[in-house]
Amino acid sequence: MYALNEQDYIQQLSIDCVIFGYREKQLNVLIPKLKFMGNFWALPGGFVHQNESIDQAARRILEERTGLKDIYLEQFRVFGAAERTNSRLLQQLIERNGETGENGQFNLNELAWITRRFVSIGYYALVDMNKVVPQKSTIDESIEWYDCKLLPTLIMDHNEMIVSALDTLQLNLDQKLIGFNLLPETFTMKEVQELYEAIFDKPLARNNFQKKILDLNVLERLDKKFTGAANKAPYLYRFLK
Amino acid sequence: MYALNEQDYIQQLSIDCVIFGYREKQLNVLIPKLKFMGNFWALPGGFVHQNESIDQAARRILEERTGLKDIYLEQFRVFGAAERTNSRLLQQLIERNGETGENGQFNLNELAWITRRFVSIGYYALVDMNKVVPQKSTIDESIEWYDCKLLPTLIMDHNEMIVSALDTLQLNLDQKLIGFNLLPETFTMKEVQELYEAIFDKPLARNNFQKKILDLNVLERLDKKFTGAANKAPYLYRFLK
Repeated sequence: MYALNEQDYIQQLSIDCVIFGYREKQLNVLIPKLKFMGNFWALPGGFVHQNESIDQAARRILEERTGLKDIYLEQFRVFGAAERTNSRLLQQLIERNGETGENGQFNLNELAWITRRFVSIGYYALVDMNKVVPQKSTIDESIEWYDCKLLPTLIMDHNEMIVSALDTLQLNLDQKLIGFNLLPETFTMKEVQELYEAIFDKPLARNNFQKKILDLNVLERLDKKFTGAANKAPYLYRFLK
Repeated sequence: MYALNEQDYIQQLSIDCVIFGYREKQLNVLIPKLKFMGNFWALPGGFVHQNESIDQAARRILEERTGLKDIYLEQFRVFGAAERTNSRLLQQLIERNGETGENGQFNLNELAWITRRFVSIGYYALVDMNKVVPQKSTIDESIEWYDCKLLPTLIMDHNEMIVSALDTLQLNLDQKLIGFNLLPETFTMKEVQELYEAIFDKPLARNNFQKKILDLNVLERLDKKFTGAANKAPYLYRFLK
């Protein structure tokens, strides 16, 4: 982990990332578990350098955790309750990593700024899970994909952040056609429907859905792949840029 | 104007407000013009006290400028480009108000923190223009409603903020119609359509529009008032609670 010098960062402002991935009809979130803390999970996050934009900071944080550069990401909300930061918990996190961590570079005096009140900008990202190699930071015990419907209890307001990110994803899905960032290059109509059903967590009527999606005029239908199984093969589609 | 002591506020974090009002088929924004600066307009804004939430800060700022307590407001985006703050302009603003202002309380040394890079949280608010008495701050020459289509050139990225707020308003209009409070207690379908036409700045087909709005299932149709003019009177509607 890079040094966290107070003067390099905007104070009391953080970024937290809800990284969504989709696989086998299931919407997942990438969540690290904290080291030395018992059962504490926290969203991947970080701070904003004085000389970088907030979007650059979010991209940097996401690249550190996923290895990917070109990720679809978007702000969804700022979390700014006056009492949202659990300073005591953050203090313990610094102390325990300073005592026990193999790097041993955490020093409570130098890192006192991290335990102050923070206003946090929530970003959500949509990734192709097959391309991601999740990366632990030095304060993480593990980092795993969790089913959106079976989340662990995260620190502070991080569970609320995931709910809010999912709300925004649902609201934006049709207007901004961002769902296709979760799918591979080509896909069947059934796969698009399964994605929508996972995101909205409810079944959708096939005929209505197909009409609705085709009416968006954003899909290109590819030639049917000849499989030998005659007309049983479904059409493949691709997202028009 | 209250004192702007550095230690009372979160540093490098501001709030800017796009206050929309609707009247006579026209969508307007409330914008102050700065004193002593020539032709400079800036969105109403402010900072976040250490002990208040960002929403409380936005409400405080909005109440100062409109006199209203119960305003519908919502975050729409954070503006965080590294170069967005025009420090030189802000320095001039402090200097000129310090020299010439009747209050004369502005001191460049004490207010140097205001000229640093700021990340700004954009809030938009929707108000009943008939209830608002626009309030100048001590640095304002005037504060006026401007037609969304005839805006002055604002400082820094404030014009972009208005565009972004309007985009969000359009995107959310159907889902949040009830909360927005841009219509009186009861209204005709024609009035709803005129509101939409003002916000989207384009004419809408009457039949399609009526069907779409009724399909939202948020309106209650009231009995036709007997006017003597027989069946010419339009139905009145009101929002379902």
